[in-house]
Amino acid sequence: MTDLERALAAADAGLDASVARLCDFIAIPSVSTDPAHAADCRRAAGWLVGELAGIGMSASLRDTARHPMVVAHDAAGSGPHVLFYGHYDVQPPDPLDLWTTPPFEAQLLPQPNGDTWITGRGASDDKGQLLTFVEACRAWKTATGALPVRVSMLFEGEEEISSPSLGSFLDATAEELRADIVLVCDTDMWNRDIPAITTMMRGLVGEEITLTAADRDLHSGIFGNAARNALELLATVLGNIRDAQGHVTVPGFYDKVQELPEAIRATWARLPFDAAAFLGGVGLSEPAGEAGRSVLEQVWARPSFELHGLWGGFTGEGFKTVIPAQAQAKISFRLVAGQDPEAIRAAFRAHVRAALPPDVRVEFTTHGGSPATILPHDGALLHSALAGLADEWGDAAIAGTGGSIPILNAFRDRLGMDALLVGFARFDNRVHSPNEKYDLSSYHRGIRSWVRILDRFAKDHQTTG
Amino acid sequence: MTDLERALAAADAGLDASVARLCDFIAIPSVSTDPAHAADCRRAAGWLVGELAGIGMSASLRDTARHPMVVAHDAAGSGPHVLFYGHYDVQPPDPLDLWTTPPFEAQLLPQPNGDTWITGRGASDDKGQLLTFVEACRAWKTATGALPVRVSMLFEGEEEISSPSLGSFLDATAEELRADIVLVCDTDMWNRDIPAITTMMRGLVGEEITLTAADRDLHSGIFGNAARNALELLATVLGNIRDAQGHVTVPGFYDKVQELPEAIRATWARLPFDAAAFLGGVGLSEPAGEAGRSVLEQVWARPSFELHGLWGGFTGEGFKTVIPAQAQAKISFRLVAGQDPEAIRAAFRAHVRAALPPDVRVEFTTHGGSPATILPHDGALLHSALAGLADEWGDAAIAGTGGSIPILNAFRDRLGMDALLVGFARFDNRVHSPNEKYDLSSYHRGIRSWVRILDRFAKDHQTTG
Repeated sequence: MTDLERALAAADAGLDASVARLCDFIAIPSVSTDPAHAADCRRAAGWLVGELAGIGMSASLRDTARHPMVVAHDAAGSGPHVLFYGHYDVQPPDPLDLWTTPPFEAQLLPQPNGDTWITGRGASDDKGQLLTFVEACRAWKTATGALPVRVSMLFEGEEEISSPSLGSFLDATAEELRADIVLVCDTDMWNRDIPAITTMMRGLVGEEITLTAADRDLHSGIFGNAARNALELLATVLGNIRDAQGHVTVPGFYDKVQELPEAIRATWARLPFDAAAFLGGVGLSEPAGEAGRSVLEQVWARPSFELHGLWGGFTGEGFKTVIPAQAQAKISFRLVAGQDPEAIRAAFRAHVRAALPPDVRVEFTTHGGSPATILPHDGALLHSALAGLADEWGDAAIAGTGGSIPILNAFRDRLGMDALLVGFARFDNRVHSPNEKYDLSSYHRGIRSWVRILDRFAKDHQTTG
Repeated sequence: MTDLERALAAADAGLDASVARLCDFIAIPSVSTDPAHAADCRRAAGWLVGELAGIGMSASLRDTARHPMVVAHDAAGSGPHVLFYGHYDVQPPDPLDLWTTPPFEAQLLPQPNGDTWITGRGASDDKGQLLTFVEACRAWKTATGALPVRVSMLFEGEEEISSPSLGSFLDATAEELRADIVLVCDTDMWNRDIPAITTMMRGLVGEEITLTAADRDLHSGIFGNAARNALELLATVLGNIRDAQGHVTVPGFYDKVQELPEAIRATWARLPFDAAAFLGGVGLSEPAGEAGRSVLEQVWARPSFELHGLWGGFTGEGFKTVIPAQAQAKISFRLVAGQDPEAIRAAFRAHVRAALPPDVRVEFTTHGGSPATILPHDGALLHSALAGLADEWGDAAIAGTGGSIPILNAFRDRLGMDALLVGFARFDNRVHSPNEKYDLSSYHRGIRSWVRILDRFAKDHQTTG
């Protein structure tokens, strides 16, 4: 029996205890946004320190202006040095009345497909996911007394409130935390059966727009036809940001957008993705967006425009023949590699201004901007991780995600580190929503996956250390 | 001295008393929409009965399901029989804090242009305007003891709440009220110096639209680009109902629209209309709407589309990257002669449906529909009235109005009567708004105008009676 086989056996044998620990962790209502739960956040951090110390790591709690960080090290291994990042804080459980089980009392609910749901707020995001790594380390320690590579861990309690302390904390602990790579377990699998390493995260430009035409609302019986309708004008401008083929019409929008690398396109073409099921799950049947692009490419690898809110005029009961003097909207662009958020913002504003007659005023308000995050698709550690995942699941994918993960930029910009995002969440985990759950198979095979990945790192990269 | 000269002299001599009566009338807060003012509405009706009886008419109050009608007759004159229509109810005065004088205590405020404002709710709409006719009759009676033509009057107290009792009342009193023409004093002058007879009133089709795409709001990080955005789709559809030249793109919309009669176009071209001042008064400088059409033609004689309200998605403080599953709007079309409201409604709905992908649902709600009202431009009584106005003011115009006056259809459909709309309101009277006023010159010369018009009717149409 190899060390790896022993470690996997330890993970299997310890599963019930691992699940019990996750349930204990879920029971701590570490809601970071609510000051009433500040002590719970501290308790969750302390719980982690205890668990990490329990497997022989040097673990400590580090105070910040709000919720503490947890840092742990085990430098006994050889080979590459990895820094695992996770977050112990959770979203508020509201609306409470939509939960069918108590949000902070995990339950094990057997499912028709043979899997079991571990229920509760944070079961998936990120308590369950982060424990897959911690429990994998436990399995290695149990089986062999040591970790195969050098491991550091960083857990924060402010991820759900945009990580206000993380940047300065990384600056202050750069020497202590710098490693060969950041490992993160906060993403989804490709589908139920194939895990994924996420390497592409779109950026975002958010804008709010206010148009003002006349100095008061007008009566359409008197002015209708001849007076500018601010609401209609805003609808025209924003309703035509995309053309009939779904292309964004803002000049220069696609100038720096590159086509998907052929290797990734080939991988995606090979792997199953059921676009009809993806859309059908939310009541849609017709893909919107860019003609000639697959749904997967559209949501992961193509920039987009969305209208998040638009309002103006009379919106109450009944009817009022008003010509609205003012109209407002909130919009965003999702960005891909090469697109500079501020350049896109400027191009959008110029595009809107060019569409306005001289007697219409416009005000823009910035709602954030961040570039896309593109992690290396071909790093040696990534290939080791893919191989470790494939050992466990039979296959593994490189995926994108349509959203942003801002903490990755903090690690890259402040510590010069790339990240590997390996996640075992399923698409139906209802993170941030009532009735969050994590599949027992996600948890068990997630632990086993990390056991294998650490083994691969050690064997494939003995020279790195 | 002719009878006409004596009647005009009586109008001048009685002006102060006429103004005092208008102030008494304004002091009765006959707000028809508010049940708390039901007794005030009845009091206003009784006040009118008293005034009309006081000039020797047989006047009576007629109950309806809500506010009473006032009917009066004087059959002593010869020539044509006219039915004067007006309304004694007024709009609510809210918002009260924007009034600079008490809404139900009329004040006489001298103005820099030498005119004097008579302030108060209803000073213009319609108490001041309707009294121009009553006081003209008083002047004739004072000067000559009789009216020159046969006169009936009908005043209702429900015009501001869409005249729910008028139709059935006209049916029930058809024999009593049928006359050669309806006279109405509830419209504007062409400008400060030239009175107008309004002969064209646009119709209206009102619609509310609800689009539903996905079965829930979606996160643009996950679905952005590939999932239908109901709000963006509604903005696209409604934002393109008019093309870049301002033409409505609904198929068939203009099929039955006829060009303005050349005689009216020539009149309008001759009369002063300052489009820049019309738009500049509300903070605009660029005419919107149909390219190649004058502002006046656009608002009086051309059909139009307006977006009155549009809403959906996230409209609160901050930002939320939601893809709205639902969006709603309220729209209307103003119609001109030849356009059938229900045909236009059906064409609009078909146009919207044709723009929707198969997985988007739409619901339409009807918010009223009425055809344009086109009164004869060339009737003999109209020419007499124009001549009477020109006698008083030096000139008179035939005008249109962009809004609807639904009571005209009731007189035409139920009593077979056309109407002459002669009004002395100025554009800045703030009807339905705080600080409503009526110019003393509107009132005085309005009374004198009716004195002359009644004289013209008698002299020009002795054979009609």
